[in-house]
Amino acid sequence: MPESFVPTNRSEIAPFVGKHIIYTYENGWQYEVYIKNERTIDYRVHGGLVGGRWVKDQDVHIVRLADGVVKISWSEPTGTCVSVAYNFLENRAHGATFFPRWIELEPGKIVGYQNDKIELMRWHRDAGPAYPTLVIDEFAAITFVEDCGRDDENVIACAPEALPPGYTLRCNVGPTGREPVEP
Amino acid sequence: MPESFVPTNRSEIAPFVGKHIIYTYENGWQYEVYIKNERTIDYRVHGGLVGGRWVKDQDVHIVRLADGVVKISWSEPTGTCVSVAYNFLENRAHGATFFPRWIELEPGKIVGYQNDKIELMRWHRDAGPAYPTLVIDEFAAITFVEDCGRDDENVIACAPEALPPGYTLRCNVGPTGREPVEP
Repeated sequence: MPESFVPTNRSEIAPFVGKHIIYTYENGWQYEVYIKNERTIDYRVHGGLVGGRWVKDQDVHIVRLADGVVKISWSEPTGTCVSVAYNFLENRAHGATFFPRWIELEPGKIVGYQNDKIELMRWHRDAGPAYPTLVIDEFAAITFVEDCGRDDENVIACAPEALPPGYTLRCNVGPTGREPVEP
Repeated sequence: MPESFVPTNRSEIAPFVGKHIIYTYENGWQYEVYIKNERTIDYRVHGGLVGGRWVKDQDVHIVRLADGVVKISWSEPTGTCVSVAYNFLENRAHGATFFPRWIELEPGKIVGYQNDKIELMRWHRDAGPAYPTLVIDEFAAITFVEDCGRDDENVIACAPEALPPGYTLRCNVGPTGREPVEP
């Protein structure tokens, strides 16, 4: 990602900054994201291909798509590219994730705390193989939403396995207005 | 992209199938897309980094994000990955496009009619360099929308430069309900 990209429209995305959410894709993969500020997310992966992965300070693009709907897109040091949309009116998310081939073959390589091994991730990225790209295009049910404010380093601050039992089972929202998407 | 991916939800995306649209990104790049059916788009690029490129029968994932909002995601033979959202209520689009480095360096390699050179595109893709990824994250103003029905091979059937003068200047919609995004 370029060092400096076009600034996000701050007023449009203000309602989304500070949101901390847990959601589960229809394929069973479970994710947790904290929108730390207009340019940054922290996230943890609780289940799926790369369960156990967690990342702080990922540079992202955040844009409003419609009322209550935000889209976050980014490119990772691994070469993975992601564009995920969250519809907070329906508590439904949709992710388009483009994984390099080497991650599909050996997902364990990107598990753990990425921030301690950024250069290793880039090394794996360049070693490949990159193609064919694995496209994961899935809906998810958002089951937990809270507002943590901006720039709170304590929201996502430890590995998934270090969390108390039941952490991801907390559920304070459900599908609304549409056919339910079961987690 | 896998040979067979999870079927798109046909009833949810029915309002979007058959749409033919022209839109211009804030950076000036101009695109034209025809949603040919639930799995396929045809498109032409009228201006920008890869102006002159055109593609038929691109396999895509199409999902409804909200009322009037659809998201289309795909991976190209070039290695480029795209996730673009169209908000037909506001006539605004937003694209997240992830270009391999070699396209940023030599965009002319992917200009022209891709369908005649799929294997060459894969060859360039594998030759690279792939990284760092060029992330283009931009809003666009939709300026033309029509409904052409499904599976019409005549909607996008020639190179951009073979079109009559003024083809992309036709304008039948504009920004609504939001601050205008100038084309």
